[in-house]
Amino acid sequence: MNIIPFRIKSKDKCARTGIITTKSGVVKTPAFMPVATLGDVKTLPFWDMKKLGVQIFISNTYHLNIRPGDELIKKMGGLHHFSGWDGPIATDSGGFQVYSLSTRRKISDDGILFSSHVDGAPLRFTPEKVIDIEINLGSDILMPLDECVGYPIGRGYAEEAMERTNRWAKRSLEYFKTLNYPGLLFGIVQGSTYTDLRGIAVSELRELDFDGFALGGLVVGEDPSQTREVIESVVPLLPEEKPRYTMGLGKIEDILWAVGEGVDLFDCVIPTRNARTAGLYTWEGKINLKNSKYKEDPNPISEDCKCPTCLHYSKAYLRHLFNTDELLAKYLATLHNISFYMELMKEIRKNVEKGNFFKWRKQILSKFKGGFDD
Amino acid sequence: MNIIPFRIKSKDKCARTGIITTKSGVVKTPAFMPVATLGDVKTLPFWDMKKLGVQIFISNTYHLNIRPGDELIKKMGGLHHFSGWDGPIATDSGGFQVYSLSTRRKISDDGILFSSHVDGAPLRFTPEKVIDIEINLGSDILMPLDECVGYPIGRGYAEEAMERTNRWAKRSLEYFKTLNYPGLLFGIVQGSTYTDLRGIAVSELRELDFDGFALGGLVVGEDPSQTREVIESVVPLLPEEKPRYTMGLGKIEDILWAVGEGVDLFDCVIPTRNARTAGLYTWEGKINLKNSKYKEDPNPISEDCKCPTCLHYSKAYLRHLFNTDELLAKYLATLHNISFYMELMKEIRKNVEKGNFFKWRKQILSKFKGGFDD
Repeated sequence: MNIIPFRIKSKDKCARTGIITTKSGVVKTPAFMPVATLGDVKTLPFWDMKKLGVQIFISNTYHLNIRPGDELIKKMGGLHHFSGWDGPIATDSGGFQVYSLSTRRKISDDGILFSSHVDGAPLRFTPEKVIDIEINLGSDILMPLDECVGYPIGRGYAEEAMERTNRWAKRSLEYFKTLNYPGLLFGIVQGSTYTDLRGIAVSELRELDFDGFALGGLVVGEDPSQTREVIESVVPLLPEEKPRYTMGLGKIEDILWAVGEGVDLFDCVIPTRNARTAGLYTWEGKINLKNSKYKEDPNPISEDCKCPTCLHYSKAYLRHLFNTDELLAKYLATLHNISFYMELMKEIRKNVEKGNFFKWRKQILSKFKGGFDD
Repeated sequence: MNIIPFRIKSKDKCARTGIITTKSGVVKTPAFMPVATLGDVKTLPFWDMKKLGVQIFISNTYHLNIRPGDELIKKMGGLHHFSGWDGPIATDSGGFQVYSLSTRRKISDDGILFSSHVDGAPLRFTPEKVIDIEINLGSDILMPLDECVGYPIGRGYAEEAMERTNRWAKRSLEYFKTLNYPGLLFGIVQGSTYTDLRGIAVSELRELDFDGFALGGLVVGEDPSQTREVIESVVPLLPEEKPRYTMGLGKIEDILWAVGEGVDLFDCVIPTRNARTAGLYTWEGKINLKNSKYKEDPNPISEDCKCPTCLHYSKAYLRHLFNTDELLAKYLATLHNISFYMELMKEIRKNVEKGNFFKWRKQILSKFKGGFDD
């Protein structure tokens, strides 16, 4: 391939914009990837994602392997054709389910043996199998199998898991190279909150020819200050010319902070999950639409917002739909939150390119009255 | 008003097309009104309804009176402004809740005393109060308060309820006339399955200056043959120059049959409710998408269908979304079913106007392998 998978466009201190080139199109970074665990971003048809400016979403290898099955998706022409989405798709490896489904798996150097959360069927995930699944899906950015540990975890086990992750990374890459598949494969940095272990992980992974690097094992129960400490310690060790992705990090204040550290890619269920429980984003902070103060509010969620929901509906109407459990509420709220995230990322890119990111960020953060975090 | 509320456009024996003129636009009949009990057709934003060719929906006085409150909706500019829908809106009177919430109400000649299904609060519905609520909502086609009895019901009580309904009809119309409100008010024919009582009801209501006539108390547990017997006996008694509406009747075979008897308006929750449980319409009958035979089906729900769902998604993908309880499934299925109903009504109107309705109906019915009824 002559394609350069990543190109830095401009920088503002550590913050940077760039272009990730995939077989399904480019991703302008910093970018946020909505989560499409089961092949759909919950409540949204692909045509809305296009309209809202979504560039890429992230799906899940473990879940799609179970339902409907990656072989079935392959028969249907791959996840792009199956889901209608022709833009880039990233796929997580199942490594996160080591953490989130910790009672349903056994780990050995061979791989992970899951007991399906749907019917208990045994599922063997090896590094090679995971690549096969991701290729069946037609993924554009593939994550190799890793072992995502929880928090807190003893140093001994954190080290063991990190080392296994690195051995798997090597196996994944070797297998991937034999297949001549036009996707990008990232290396995943583990090591829990032990920054020296993270450092060892990076030094080993840097020796391998990955197309980008992800920080895994974050936002799994550790204190936010620890999350930031890990990112601060790891990002400077990563090669500048490759994209960096902090897996699962996606609260707005965290994104604003991490972009300043040089992170390029984000994903999180938070905008879609919040939407479904009436948590809506505005430039003044997050509001809960169920609050009775919006009962007679004729204004949109956000005056500046150009999403279909804000162009057409009042807070009073949306609150009524939430209060009466109408499904339409969840859809309209998701439209808004994803639109908000896409606008945020666009503003971030614009301000980095103007060399104004840090000044702009300060202004933005000072406006956030209620804050964005739950 | 110089406006003629209803004009017959063409006839094919008893089947006819017509135009209902309301303050919010015209409705070409025969027309199907999707149900928007709480001010939204479940899962659909108004912009999709416009695209699918929905002309009018029907909302519910009882439910909107409780949540969010008709006074609140009035403050928000009426249900049109509140819901974003600028086309015609019909409103039911709360009479159906006499049947559906039969343990929560007391009836006297004054009106109905409900105990709210949400919080038990007492709600007094009189004929005048119902008109007030409907005007607060900004309704285009108003239904007066009636007493909808269940099935079976003794002749004595059926007569009593029909007579009360007619007294309320008179009170409603008298009150309505004093208000100079530019909506259309229909009279509701009750009398259960006693066709002679229905006949008495019509003869009294015809004396009053209603803009149209509805047949209430149908599809409440009686045998389908009884429903048809009532319609066959009542419709010929109604004035030709006014629209006829069979309340709650909406299965496809019933619509096809009733159009042939001269019915103009329909409403039913069935297309939206079926959609949410994977019951999808095709010209060959209704299919259940959860059926395993669609597991690897790359085709749309219906080859001929031009709805966004059929243009972009396969049965296999939709089945996957239903199987994994993704909300998107309900939305995409609703888009299809409402689109199907709108196409059906368009075809009906086209064939009536060509004088070809009965021939076309025969062809259509012969294609329905599985039938449409649940």
